[in-house]
Amino acid sequence: MIQMNIMLNPNRGLWPELCQRPVMDNAALTPLVADIMNQVKLFGDKALLELNETIDGVKRCALRVSDEEWEIAADGLNSSLKAAMQTAFGNILAFHRAQVPANIEVQTMPGIRCSRQWLPLQRVGLYIPGGSAPLCSTVLMLAIPALVAGCSEVVLCTPPNQSGNINPAILYAARLCGVTAVYKCGGAQAIAAMTYGTDSIPRVDKIFGPGNQYVTKAKQLAALEGMAIDMPAGPSEVMVVVDKTSNASFAAADLLSQAEHGADSQVVLLSNNVEKINEVLTEVGEQLQRLPRKAIALAALTNCRCIVFDEEEILVDFMNAYAPEHLILAIENPELRSAQVRNAGSVFLGPYTPEAAGDYATGTNHTLPTNGAARAWSGLGVESFMKSITFQSLTQQGLESIGNAVMELAKAEQLQAHSNAIAIRLATFQKNNDAKI
Amino acid sequence: MIQMNIMLNPNRGLWPELCQRPVMDNAALTPLVADIMNQVKLFGDKALLELNETIDGVKRCALRVSDEEWEIAADGLNSSLKAAMQTAFGNILAFHRAQVPANIEVQTMPGIRCSRQWLPLQRVGLYIPGGSAPLCSTVLMLAIPALVAGCSEVVLCTPPNQSGNINPAILYAARLCGVTAVYKCGGAQAIAAMTYGTDSIPRVDKIFGPGNQYVTKAKQLAALEGMAIDMPAGPSEVMVVVDKTSNASFAAADLLSQAEHGADSQVVLLSNNVEKINEVLTEVGEQLQRLPRKAIALAALTNCRCIVFDEEEILVDFMNAYAPEHLILAIENPELRSAQVRNAGSVFLGPYTPEAAGDYATGTNHTLPTNGAARAWSGLGVESFMKSITFQSLTQQGLESIGNAVMELAKAEQLQAHSNAIAIRLATFQKNNDAKI
Repeated sequence: MIQMNIMLNPNRGLWPELCQRPVMDNAALTPLVADIMNQVKLFGDKALLELNETIDGVKRCALRVSDEEWEIAADGLNSSLKAAMQTAFGNILAFHRAQVPANIEVQTMPGIRCSRQWLPLQRVGLYIPGGSAPLCSTVLMLAIPALVAGCSEVVLCTPPNQSGNINPAILYAARLCGVTAVYKCGGAQAIAAMTYGTDSIPRVDKIFGPGNQYVTKAKQLAALEGMAIDMPAGPSEVMVVVDKTSNASFAAADLLSQAEHGADSQVVLLSNNVEKINEVLTEVGEQLQRLPRKAIALAALTNCRCIVFDEEEILVDFMNAYAPEHLILAIENPELRSAQVRNAGSVFLGPYTPEAAGDYATGTNHTLPTNGAARAWSGLGVESFMKSITFQSLTQQGLESIGNAVMELAKAEQLQAHSNAIAIRLATFQKNNDAKI
Repeated sequence: MIQMNIMLNPNRGLWPELCQRPVMDNAALTPLVADIMNQVKLFGDKALLELNETIDGVKRCALRVSDEEWEIAADGLNSSLKAAMQTAFGNILAFHRAQVPANIEVQTMPGIRCSRQWLPLQRVGLYIPGGSAPLCSTVLMLAIPALVAGCSEVVLCTPPNQSGNINPAILYAARLCGVTAVYKCGGAQAIAAMTYGTDSIPRVDKIFGPGNQYVTKAKQLAALEGMAIDMPAGPSEVMVVVDKTSNASFAAADLLSQAEHGADSQVVLLSNNVEKINEVLTEVGEQLQRLPRKAIALAALTNCRCIVFDEEEILVDFMNAYAPEHLILAIENPELRSAQVRNAGSVFLGPYTPEAAGDYATGTNHTLPTNGAARAWSGLGVESFMKSITFQSLTQQGLESIGNAVMELAKAEQLQAHSNAIAIRLATFQKNNDAKI
């Protein structure tokens, strides 16, 4: 059994500390990342090729994945993985298609027609981290909403391996979702390329996707220069809520599936029942032994918080105060509790809904707000790849209806020219009326 | 007549420069603003009261506006301004009510139910700049969507005058829109108060509103610490498109109503007709003479760009490349052209739709993306004051349908514990089946 401190009914004064995630101070990276970005800004593709070599140890290769490479990837991939991606693709597509925001048109007064139209972003940039395992699910989660939104150009940057190749699973997923082009380029330099544009890689309107601390810092710096980014990044988190009815081995498996992400993963176990918590911890200890990423999971578990609240209402308050990225309600009547959720990224209801299901294939998006950002941010949706524009059209009657109100407000704000823009039009109406008389 | 250089058919190589707004480098403010924010973080209300005195020259006063002050404001305000606010309120409310995003529920496969629910942010902070004129329209534009979204707490910070009073027009507008509390506090210190919370002013989930360079810098620094903010700030802009049918004096009045905002306002006049541009400029020269803020408008006009494109298609491309905050289509058949708009904050169609009408009272929001941000950002809407949460619920059948796909994808990503979370559940189904046999 994992030894872990269980807090019983911590009072509200302690909550801010309990809700605090480890602070990642990446300020020290600023000069280094700013320098990399500046090289790309100044020297474009040349800098990218050099940085591929010096930072990632990649031998010289064309930046853009060729048609031939796409085809080889599709041919070579095993069919069960392709089938899995297609299943996930279908569900994610179905759920995101239902999200397309509605255009509206309202006649706010006779002669005043206002509308709001949603349009796709034209060119979006997706970043997919490298590493030993290809994050093909992240390709699906970023590229499918872009596809549904109707973005005309979807570019994807990801670091190649040292031989200059991209994992075929990434390429297959990208093609499945209609990604326009894939570039062999990673890290801060990839973010810079999509921010400034190079001869090969176009400047994009918005950058999406996870990454290491260099990528995160580069996205922050790009945002300061006006680039739109998806959301602030932080380590992944899960809060699992259990009661006396919960299956302890399911809960333990869910905690471990979060913990294996990285040593900085955040795991919280919340309950009204201390025995069940102990039962889950015993199971965690047993299941842990069989994991290949045992060391990582164990490190994450040292940050694990086990908290018991006897009163349901207070438990719900804490759940919302923490605002977890993933919230698993492995309890009796989860629907009832889910109606009380105010702050969370994505919620998993009942015994047969592990987070892993949503990470890959239920249809919901796995790009979600971390570090309490769920208080103000949503997970990625189709509208993250769109923007809205408002339109208004006034007839003479319309302008006459609000003309005085506008002039009165403009006067209060001491903006005479605003008032003039109304008056000069009203005067012509008056003149026309006079002419008719 | 205003002397101004008119560019004829500038080639695409020049467009990036023509679309460039003056760069506002406020990096130099960072240490100063960071210091102010840190004082508020450390000393709370005490720091706010001191900064009110030392920075804004305000004599000591309670931070929170009292009930009595609210009532005096409502009683004292002249009735025509109240009526104007009510007209604006009605239209803005009607247009924003239509924006409430729809919740969705999709059964992506038999036994897999996914939903997305929109919820209001719980506590939002609005910033209203001070100065000689009360920006009551900005109160309406920020507080009405918060009201429609259903935010449970809406706090507003605005600097008082030196006697410690808030302009009654601000207070009246705030009450009209159901603002919870108004605090006498401005500048970077107000942003800090809403970011960290003090004894008087609560920490909020998201900060909205315009401000000077100190406020803008403070919002940037708050965002780096994870605070959600509305959008990047920049000087206001208008692009006016005219053709041979346009009324030159209307167009001139619209250009001037943008120019009077500040010397850094951006004004672009676009046409397929050089004579009309000259006609408009002549009108600008005449109308300018009668403006109280003549000096400011004249300064802004020195940045004005007049551009002629003979070919309609290229003109439209340029219009979209510039991505103006406000776009006035003062042309024949504006509806036709409006269908070609890809990037803009808000669009004004036809001769009787001046920007001023939308700034105050058509119903659309006047908080809009500047500096080309309209390529990726929307203006404020009701969903800016909400967030969405996804939910998923699987039955045994649902988990059986996607279980293999999830395990396959988890395997590809080398996340064994993710796969285990599925396998452990599937195993119990198997056991139950075996038991039945």
